[in-house]
Amino acid sequence: MNAIITLTTDFGLADAYVAAMKGVILGINPGARIIDICHSIQPQNVSQAAFVLSTAYQFFPERAIHVVVVDPGVGTDRRAVILRTPLADFIAPDNGVLSCVLPPSSDQPNDDRRRQVALAPGLEAVAITRPEFWRSPVSPTFHGRDIFAPVAARLSLGLSPADFGTPVSALSVLPRHRPCRAADGTLTGHVLHIDNFGNLVTSIKGDDLPDQAIAIEVGSQTISGLSRTYEEGRELLALIGSNGYLEISRKGGSACAFLEAEVGNEVKIGLKGQ
Amino acid sequence: MNAIITLTTDFGLADAYVAAMKGVILGINPGARIIDICHSIQPQNVSQAAFVLSTAYQFFPERAIHVVVVDPGVGTDRRAVILRTPLADFIAPDNGVLSCVLPPSSDQPNDDRRRQVALAPGLEAVAITRPEFWRSPVSPTFHGRDIFAPVAARLSLGLSPADFGTPVSALSVLPRHRPCRAADGTLTGHVLHIDNFGNLVTSIKGDDLPDQAIAIEVGSQTISGLSRTYEEGRELLALIGSNGYLEISRKGGSACAFLEAEVGNEVKIGLKGQ
Amino acid sequence: MNAIITLTTDFGLADAYVAAMKGVILGINPGARIIDICHSIQPQNVSQAAFVLSTAYQFFPERAIHVVVVDPGVGTDRRAVILRTPLADFIAPDNGVLSCVLPPSSDQPNDDRRRQVALAPGLEAVAITRPEFWRSPVSPTFHGRDIFAPVAARLSLGLSPADFGTPVSALSVLPRHRPCRAADGTLTGHVLHIDNFGNLVTSIKGDDLPDQAIAIEVGSQTISGLSRTYEEGRELLALIGSNGYLEISRKGGSACAFLEAEVGNEVKIGLKGQ
Repeated sequence: MNAIITLTTDFGLADAYVAAMKGVILGINPGARIIDICHSIQPQNVSQAAFVLSTAYQFFPERAIHVVVVDPGVGTDRRAVILRTPLADFIAPDNGVLSCVLPPSSDQPNDDRRRQVALAPGLEAVAITRPEFWRSPVSPTFHGRDIFAPVAARLSLGLSPADFGTPVSALSVLPRHRPCRAADGTLTGHVLHIDNFGNLVTSIKGDDLPDQAIAIEVGSQTISGLSRTYEEGRELLALIGSNGYLEISRKGGSACAFLEAEVGNEVKIGLKGQ
Repeated sequence: MNAIITLTTDFGLADAYVAAMKGVILGINPGARIIDICHSIQPQNVSQAAFVLSTAYQFFPERAIHVVVVDPGVGTDRRAVILRTPLADFIAPDNGVLSCVLPPSSDQPNDDRRRQVALAPGLEAVAITRPEFWRSPVSPTFHGRDIFAPVAARLSLGLSPADFGTPVSALSVLPRHRPCRAADGTLTGHVLHIDNFGNLVTSIKGDDLPDQAIAIEVGSQTISGLSRTYEEGRELLALIGSNGYLEISRKGGSACAFLEAEVGNEVKIGLKGQ
Repeated sequence: MNAIITLTTDFGLADAYVAAMKGVILGINPGARIIDICHSIQPQNVSQAAFVLSTAYQFFPERAIHVVVVDPGVGTDRRAVILRTPLADFIAPDNGVLSCVLPPSSDQPNDDRRRQVALAPGLEAVAITRPEFWRSPVSPTFHGRDIFAPVAARLSLGLSPADFGTPVSALSVLPRHRPCRAADGTLTGHVLHIDNFGNLVTSIKGDDLPDQAIAIEVGSQTISGLSRTYEEGRELLALIGSNGYLEISRKGGSACAFLEAEVGNEVKIGLKGQ
């Protein structure tokens, strides 16, 4: 079966951990199409993995199987799960790494705590508990190779999620850190991600912005209004990027280096002239 | 259809941009064989991309489709094109990144300006103008995902280049920077590329060299004659590399680190004893 | 034929060397499944390549073809070989890079010299000597593209190793550097590999350890006993990793950075309280 299996990990490219997973998958489903989403997630950075996954999975064909192994708790009693959505299947530790796949929930307040959130209608999840589908013995330090890879390969052959374990009704979700709107209308978000070009991807969506002309404050700089492309506007510019987020960019250079920016930095949107 | 589609970008490996393109391609042609040529092109370095592409495409089977997305002008009025040659198809912005695929032209002088050069006989090019083959809506900042990927996938299914837009008779070409020969026979070239081993790949081809014994000046060092392999000769050595260019190499080390060399540095060839 | 061909090289990801090999393979066997094991081997680090290969090949399906191109002697009179084992085929320079694939041998003493070791029963090897299966001409600096890739592709189509050259009865093997046991029972090993997480993988196997409680000395630190997972124990911990080696790890951080460790550093195991 030519199912697509994608991999997102923090394994890096200097070890053979990713290859070991691919070998296990191909041993079970020789026809699987294995596609790398990203293996350069910072070690154990669950929220970065959640973000990167969210910018990729929706562009894959329906029923692709997305495996995420950013798993600081490997070998402990943290759960591993399969999540089935109308679009795709996800296999991951239940540590919040699937947060961006789940619909926003009113159970998910804007604070710093990770919590269990009930599954929305139309979603199905199981805890991966049946060892007959795993490699044996299982290394307590490499569930990617010994549990996630064989489960993904067998799911790609047509088994159903329910075959792998027991249903669960809630999944772990990271705090969402939505932008805050002050009484004067100022919107405060933060830098979610910094890409390979040094673009600052912020937590502010295009839909969050007012219709009026805006001024964007980041670091000690103020940017007036939005550009449409990376070539328009002045040296430092803002635009709505390809995933719908407000981005800060620098023409022909790196906004990150120019602003000495970091993930988490504040970005403020005010009305122009305020 | 099992067509081969290769990807060359400056997207790096820490974001999901490359994966998003692969997802789009597989959604249109599930049988496509997608091969990465390189995603570590320096951001917006069109001439590096042109060089790296030139060292790879000729080793692929005929009729492979080579997609290049190094595209500082994305979303502006720069053209995107399909180039069909007797060997392969290329999909790229018309910014000079296909320079090394085109035959050398007398229209292409040895100066610093990029210019439009008429297509040689046997080549066919079209501007990609028909949005019915793109994703919709198109992000003005990610044509790789929304235009290049779906066009490549549909071309791989058997459409012809002419289906995607209007014919063009000239393409943008970068200055070629051919080596210069002085009155005394000295040949001056420069460092085109520095590879993973610290080898300096120069703009001087083996065919450019005189039959007599030569001396190669680079930085403050002089190398006497050519070696055949990286193990022959002294610590610093020169040889004709696997793509036909003169290379400066250091046995068991990095010529780049030893010489503190950069792309663009001069390399001079004289006759020995001069 | 859908044979699996894996690639392990020191080519890095910023050049097109790996892609050129893939293009050559697909031109000969369009159905080959090409899987990257690792291309970030340090330039010419044969022992690192041997280790990384050993942690991956055993997880691939039987009869996969593993190509290793870490080849400081490319173009010299060093041999290139095909090794057939009951599990898989290997194609590599005969420089010791296949050491970890071969069974331990009494001919392989614990010193610093690489030597030829007779093949164990059940193994078959040939020197790659028949140029009719290579690209022509062969670059003396890139046998990966011109010899290893076409030989792998043709082997994947069903030729037998013997078709490619003359049988050999011994292969080059690196010194194995087994842990030493002192008269008082203390075991001294060293750091074999440092992974992406900063874990120190040592040359000490779980089977080497005594049944009693142990103390592990590394740098100026002493670790008491083994943990089961990366989350258990104190900040600095030791466990048996997913390839069976004793690893030194730091909870939520990098043991390598914390200990300023390097490959080759000593690690000592004593009985607790000694």
